[in-house]
This record gives sequence, structure tokens and C-alpha cells, in this order.
Amino acid sequence: MQVKDIAVHVPTVTVTDPVAKAVRVMAVARLPGLVVVDNHGRPRIVLPGTQVLRLAVPGSYQEDPALARAVDEDHADRFWQELGDLTVGDCLPRQPVKLVTVPENATLLEAAALMARLHSPLLAVIGRDGTLSGAITLDRLLTSLALAGFGD
Amino acid sequence: MQVKDIAVHVPTVTVTDPVAKAVRVMAVARLPGLVVVDNHGRPRIVLPGTQVLRLAVPGSYQEDPALARAVDEDHADRFWQELGDLTVGDCLPRQPVKLVTVPENATLLEAAALMARLHSPLLAVIGRDGTLSGAITLDRLLTSLALAGFGD
Repeated sequence: MQVKDIAVHVPTVTVTDPVAKAVRVMAVARLPGLVVVDNHGRPRIVLPGTQVLRLAVPGSYQEDPALARAVDEDHADRFWQELGDLTVGDCLPRQPVKLVTVPENATLLEAAALMARLHSPLLAVIGRDGTLSGAITLDRLLTSLALAGFGD
Repeated sequence: MQVKDIAVHVPTVTVTDPVAKAVRVMAVARLPGLVVVDNHGRPRIVLPGTQVLRLAVPGSYQEDPALARAVDEDHADRFWQELGDLTVGDCLPRQPVKLVTVPENATLLEAAALMARLHSPLLAVIGRDGTLSGAITLDRLLTSLALAGFGD
């Protein structure tokens, strides 16, 4: 099998989308991460789900567990309301992010090795013109390997 | 809400289980990671899904993309057959792994901050006796936050 045989269509966001929208898109599609594309539909960044969550949790709470513990339960359920108009671009890490992409003819082994090495449960699959042609989730990869007899 | 309100039961593995079983358990339960427990049911390690995959992909392929690319498609579908009798314990990283646990009365904000900080889409919830009482997945956390109005 090649990755194009198991790739699925996924919704995407751009750097100008609000963080709240990004989290919602990921949650509704039940994706383990999110592909951020540019205005030409080319993948720019692939964010693992925990890093999408990271965009939405105020940094002070991430750095100081005692501060997070001090927030009462009702407010803790609504911490994301502090996001305001922040966009995906506002919250991205400043250091360059490795672009987690594979060509359509990559094998499942290449996809698995890349996911494992870069700790990304989502890979962007790119077509010959450089635009996004689909994505591979960890779940989808494991199911495909199982159909090929994993663990028999 | 507290994490005990949204925790779910998850299957677990021990360090003596074969890696192939660990991957299968995670895939069948469609979990984003795996809780490794000791013989007393206490969480020992929480592995993100990509790190469970890492146990199953021979290191040589992870380190050398060109080597992975050189494997033909049929063999690439069955790379995991090289695992043999390797156990979870054989494949764990040598450096100490941070134990990603929360007490049952932690808030959703504490859970979100921990997931974001430690890059773990799965948290083990521990009861007063130190044993595993359930787990929180990123997906479950986001759904629970959405029910509290995320992104309205």
C-alpha cells in the first residue's frame, strides 16, 4: 500500500483563523492534529493535537500547575474564553516547526517511521503540485497495518 | 467538572507484554496512547500513540528515511513482523519518562494544561490508593469543553 491508498480528506485552517475555530475544527472532525495551509492550499505546518490545545491554554497555566490548581471548577471549565480574538498565527511557536509531509507514493513504513520520529499522529500528504491531497492519522495507519495482519 | 466526571475505562499493558500486543490494544480501543501499569495496577508510564508506534518501528528506519524508502511496498506493509518477541519493557526509552497522571479531583483546566505541557494526548487518572481509576483522552477533553460552550 501507498499513503495515497489510505489518505483521508481533512478540514484545514490558516494562520488567520481564530484559535477557538482551530480547536473546534479538530474536535468536530475528531482529528489527532491539524494541518495549517497557506492561501494556495499548500501545507505550512502540521500541529499534533496537544499542540493545538497548547494554543488554547494560556501559557501561565501551562507553566505553573499551582496556578491552574487555584482556579475554581466553574472557571476552569471556561478557561478558553480568555482566548478572545487570538489567531492560530499569533500562538504558533517562534522556532521553526518541522513540516510533517509525505508524498503520495510513500509506503506505510515510511509514514510510520516519520510519525514515530517526529512525534506527530497526523501527516499531510502532498500531491505533485505541492498542495494538500489528504492526510494520514495514526489511527488510520494502525488500522491499515492491522488489515495487512499486524500482530497475527 | 472534575476529571473523574469525564474519565473513561481504558485497557492497559505491562512491561512484559509483547510490543505487537500493545499496538493492537491501542488500535482496537482507538486510543491516542497507552497506559503501562505495574503488577499492582499502578500507572508506571503513559505513552503517547506516536511513541507506542516508535516501539514497533525498527530504529534503523526511524533514523534513516532513505533506508525506509528503499524497502519495497509489500515488505513495507509488514515491517512489524520484524518485532519478534520484543516486549514493551525491551523498547522503552532509557531516560526516565515523566508520568502523566492527574488526581480524580483535578479540573479540566489542569488536565488541559498538563496535556499541552507534556505533549500527551492521554492522561492517567489515579485514585487515592495510587491505582489507575481511568483515563482522559484529548478527544474526550475537547468534547467536554465543547459541551461547556467552547468556541461559542
